Amino acid sequence: MPVDQKTGVGLLGAGVVGSQVARVILDATDGAASNLTLNGVLVRDINRSREGVPSGLLTTDPEQVLSDDRNDLIVEVMGGEEPARSYMAAAMRSGKHVVTANKEALAKHGDELVGLAADNGVTLSYEASVGGGIPVLAVIQDSLSANRIESIRAIINGTTNYILSSMDEAGSSFEDALEEAQELGFAEADPTADVDAHDAMYKLSILARLAFGASALPDTIHREGIRNIGAKDLRYAGALGYTIKLLAIARSGSDGIRCRVHPALVPNDVPMAKVNGVLNAVELNGDLLGPLWLQGRGAGAGPTASAVMGDVLRIAHGMLGNGGGGKSQTGSPSATNGPPVVGMDDLEVCYYVRLAAIDRFGVLAKIANVFGEGHISIASVLQFDADDERGLADLVIMTHPAREANMQETAARLRQLDVVASLENLIRVEDYDTV
Amino acid sequence: MPVDQKTGVGLLGAGVVGSQVARVILDATDGAASNLTLNGVLVRDINRSREGVPSGLLTTDPEQVLSDDRNDLIVEVMGGEEPARSYMAAAMRSGKHVVTANKEALAKHGDELVGLAADNGVTLSYEASVGGGIPVLAVIQDSLSANRIESIRAIINGTTNYILSSMDEAGSSFEDALEEAQELGFAEADPTADVDAHDAMYKLSILARLAFGASALPDTIHREGIRNIGAKDLRYAGALGYTIKLLAIARSGSDGIRCRVHPALVPNDVPMAKVNGVLNAVELNGDLLGPLWLQGRGAGAGPTASAVMGDVLRIAHGMLGNGGGGKSQTGSPSATNGPPVVGMDDLEVCYYVRLAAIDRFGVLAKIANVFGEGHISIASVLQFDADDERGLADLVIMTHPAREANMQETAARLRQLDVVASLENLIRVEDYDTV
Repeated sequence: MPVDQKTGVGLLGAGVVGSQVARVILDATDGAASNLTLNGVLVRDINRSREGVPSGLLTTDPEQVLSDDRNDLIVEVMGGEEPARSYMAAAMRSGKHVVTANKEALAKHGDELVGLAADNGVTLSYEASVGGGIPVLAVIQDSLSANRIESIRAIINGTTNYILSSMDEAGSSFEDALEEAQELGFAEADPTADVDAHDAMYKLSILARLAFGASALPDTIHREGIRNIGAKDLRYAGALGYTIKLLAIARSGSDGIRCRVHPALVPNDVPMAKVNGVLNAVELNGDLLGPLWLQGRGAGAGPTASAVMGDVLRIAHGMLGNGGGGKSQTGSPSATNGPPVVGMDDLEVCYYVRLAAIDRFGVLAKIANVFGEGHISIASVLQFDADDERGLADLVIMTHPAREANMQETAARLRQLDVVASLENLIRVEDYDTV
Repeated sequence: MPVDQKTGVGLLGAGVVGSQVARVILDATDGAASNLTLNGVLVRDINRSREGVPSGLLTTDPEQVLSDDRNDLIVEVMGGEEPARSYMAAAMRSGKHVVTANKEALAKHGDELVGLAADNGVTLSYEASVGGGIPVLAVIQDSLSANRIESIRAIINGTTNYILSSMDEAGSSFEDALEEAQELGFAEADPTADVDAHDAMYKLSILARLAFGASALPDTIHREGIRNIGAKDLRYAGALGYTIKLLAIARSGSDGIRCRVHPALVPNDVPMAKVNGVLNAVELNGDLLGPLWLQGRGAGAGPTASAVMGDVLRIAHGMLGNGGGGKSQTGSPSATNGPPVVGMDDLEVCYYVRLAAIDRFGVLAKIANVFGEGHISIASVLQFDADDERGLADLVIMTHPAREANMQETAARLRQLDVVASLENLIRVEDYDTV
């Protein structure tokens, strides 16, 4: 491509992010973005007006964007698995670079899509799929390239972080906090993808692929959402010096890579505990670098467009410099030969166990006995909120580090114990002392 | 250069950072670093052994490294202005890429060195010169390329941050905290470069060049060190809800770019207040992205080698992909045509003013009168530590936002006031409400 020619861009999707990307390209009068030309925008509803985007650019026919020879690069911001995956595949097969914000398609079809990029000599970039405007993928792939990444710990879902933050602050229930988040536009009408942690799981899958070269497909990642977190859990955790966050954690160990997304007790005095509201934060640990902390807006039109446009300009810059295809910045090699992804059984962490137990002498001995038989050492026991009418009290047991398989087996036995009315919650405690 | 050939590296300097870089290259058995060959290392003392670095690679003759045709890339980790600048210039003139950690040479000779890179078609990269292992330059130049950067606020000198943190924690004097830092190896025997903020000034100069395209030469940057900060200031600031940090700030305004390095009162409840010890942190604000926070180890062999090697591998990767010179990642264009760098006169911030004043009726009226005549509005006045013997008390006055020129004029008048024994300190308050 001659140096004086502009880079042609086709856009798939014109929601809040797509419209923002379109405006950034269309409004650029100087700088790198002024060397881009937006040739077409695929939309679902051609009659809806999009501020700052001329209606002449809009089309409901994907072929008009995908088969337009003027487009060197396709930006996919439709979201969802299909037809986004097929459109991206078609674009790469016809020699076009692809920039996407699509976490689900990348997490589920990363090997296929990255392979297509390599096979067709094009670049696939997806910085916007994780952490919104936080450039975590570029940092892992590029700046930390001399490091062996040891661990990633992150808050990468703004909706659940907003809900947990407001539960902690206002003492409200999950249901009330969710409703408030929905009213403020921080949660969808159907909140499943966020509160059941599918969104965070997809993002962790992408992070693990890049950082460890591991094929961490979604079904290899342990996933628990936040529906089961009660106002009581935040109150009791607070009394013990913790808050509760939905963490996404991937860690390299001698046996492989362990990936998990679940609520965790986080000590109040570490930075992760202070990431509140819709913010996202990622803590990387590299063998040379030590810990690196990135924090910013994980969603929204501006931050996501910032990440999309960073990828677009990198590819456009590469095309100008090389007289050919740009170099993949965040496209990882196929991860099928990477380290194994291991399950939860051998995880060793401390646990917070909340029981509704019968409030009388001798009960604790019975409960403690079950822990002992499971080879789990108890660190502390606190009793809260005795309910005289029902003869029950909340018992919060904090354990020393224990093996996950042992803890799950012990939990099953506790549920069957006659003095335990119910095992209300079992939450892992994240360790910030031995990183 | 053929794809199967290795990238030759010559190293200038083998202190803690240089030795670490050498070991990373020499020890690499797989991954990108295994495609590098270390051909020679310039040292001052050839008889000192460097663990993991074969003595056969060492030389005291710079020409042996600079003129070695096997070297595609020179890594400069000697530090200091000369001869580092000359060596880098010579390397680029002979067609070699340069990676450096040298803040002083870049801050003082950035236009010349960046110009040489462009003229000779080579890459000059200097990620390690600012923030140690924190990849702030790559993030500004690459990931945030679609953003207009609005401001940078940073703690980029670990020594002064360690001293201020320990003064705040232990209530110790500057002198005692400095001595402790020296004993722990966090401060040099001659601490001038750090405590008088030359180091932070150089780094801010580099950041401002990249983020704003401004030719922010060191002498255009307002610089104040921390020698004048007393245990009293930290105590009084604490009583008012603040701590004191040495901040490096560059902000784009309607009149140009203002760059300043000075101690500042930082509200205790913002993340910057919690950056303690030798950590570094950088807060960027982009128009699309909003705030982005980066935090990590700002110095040390591992973090600095991480940044150096990130640059080295990026260049090596570019050489392989292009069959020619790599593309400059963090080499900015010449900044001589950038926005103007403006002085301090029109800065508007709040101030903390500590006076030793005569402790009797009517004194405050006289003092307040001087503020009023200077068009500076007082927000609060607190009296501390009355000294009955000398008849003096400490008066801490917090102002509303005021123009710097007015404040300096008022300070001069306060110093001459008969009821003021001395103006002990004047510290700017950093605003975290109106970012």
